[in-house]
Amino acid sequence: MNILITAGGTSEAIDSVRNLTNHATGSLGKVIAETLSSHVHTIFYVHGPRAVLPDKENINNYPISSVRDLEKTMHDLLTAHTIHTVIHSMAVSDYELDYTTSEVNLAKQLADVITTKQPATKENLETLIIETLTSNQFATNKEKKIRSTSEQLIIALKKAPKVIHSIKKWQPTTQLIGFKLLVGVPEIDLVTAAKESIKKNKADYIVANDLEHISTTQHQALIINQTGIKERCETKQDIANSLLNIIKQEG
Amino acid sequence: MNILITAGGTSEAIDSVRNLTNHATGSLGKVIAETLSSHVHTIFYVHGPRAVLPDKENINNYPISSVRDLEKTMHDLLTAHTIHTVIHSMAVSDYELDYTTSEVNLAKQLADVITTKQPATKENLETLIIETLTSNQFATNKEKKIRSTSEQLIIALKKAPKVIHSIKKWQPTTQLIGFKLLVGVPEIDLVTAAKESIKKNKADYIVANDLEHISTTQHQALIINQTGIKERCETKQDIANSLLNIIKQEG
Repeated sequence: MNILITAGGTSEAIDSVRNLTNHATGSLGKVIAETLSSHVHTIFYVHGPRAVLPDKENINNYPISSVRDLEKTMHDLLTAHTIHTVIHSMAVSDYELDYTTSEVNLAKQLADVITTKQPATKENLETLIIETLTSNQFATNKEKKIRSTSEQLIIALKKAPKVIHSIKKWQPTTQLIGFKLLVGVPEIDLVTAAKESIKKNKADYIVANDLEHISTTQHQALIINQTGIKERCETKQDIANSLLNIIKQEG
Repeated sequence: MNILITAGGTSEAIDSVRNLTNHATGSLGKVIAETLSSHVHTIFYVHGPRAVLPDKENINNYPISSVRDLEKTMHDLLTAHTIHTVIHSMAVSDYELDYTTSEVNLAKQLADVITTKQPATKENLETLIIETLTSNQFATNKEKKIRSTSEQLIIALKKAPKVIHSIKKWQPTTQLIGFKLLVGVPEIDLVTAAKESIKKNKADYIVANDLEHISTTQHQALIINQTGIKERCETKQDIANSLLNIIKQEG
């Protein structure tokens, strides 16, 4: 059987020298890949820039950078190969670049629109400002390297495509194991968020974890399916072993 | 003699999982450090996250992440040690986080202020919007992890301190070699930018380079002092050799 693992974090270019990155060392993905490698035929390992890489002969690396890169690579792999399970542990950005501007340019554009359209009520004014902020009029001002002359640099990001949402569309029969990372929340919130993700993305399992319970030696996580908490893990190796069991059962 | 080298890029936290990073592998800094190491007593090597590191016994590493970290580390080193030359090759962010918000929140705040203050002219409206965008009213809404519910995520960045500007204040007798990176400009612009930096930061030399003429095998750069172009380099090793000559002359 073939497995697809995503690991590390995405990186969205803001200009030719700046990037918006999601922290993620990729070390969990590496442990999972190395634990699974002797039980499967091939692992397609899709990883972000600077992720630590597993080192086994049957692991093929696919480097990506942006969410769009990830989407294309996942699409191509999932439409070309039969993949038993997708383990989607990558920290994927929810947003991608819309435009960059300065406080001076933004104020000028807003003042122009407000003066021209003269909204009658505060609600109309709010709506007009939202429309201006999210319109395409800023779309062309992507510079090679943003100059540092203005006092403020404003980066507007728009929703990036949700790659996890497409996985079962590209390959309906694959088993999907997603991840959910929250920060400093009670366990019930992890379970709720995991169940929402299972429903929305047709995931079979979600590994839910809290950044405050992850360190170099510890990695607390809940493995959740639609019936509830299936397993509690304390380390990255625990998580990898649990995922191996799931794959063996379903294989 | 002691040398201080900065290398790699800075990384500004946006929230607990997102970062704004400046690309920079640190590979130029590594070549410079390794070339200089046998000619100097100690190298203080201040580097950004994920920079490749030189490996010599007399090189002491000082990892930093944000511009504020860099400022503190440089201040501490330059006020504690006599440093013959500072080679400041790090890609330092010009901006740091001011606040994050959504298009809905921003529109609400702007509409509130505009409705209350009723600016009489378009110029007054522009000024009021700029004041609101750059005011401290957003200062407290720093979230642990920004939720991905809004359509747009707006990141407002403000000017970060210019660390290069403080180096000669902290240690007036040190020799300062700065770097200037531009993208896709004619040579005259590199020279002009370098001379401005020499004046503004009391730098002795500026290594001026263009991102479009940097690859894994090539690294074109001009070494410029206040009289003009002193040297033309084609590779990272060329740059390192030229800097070694400068240090030997002035030592």
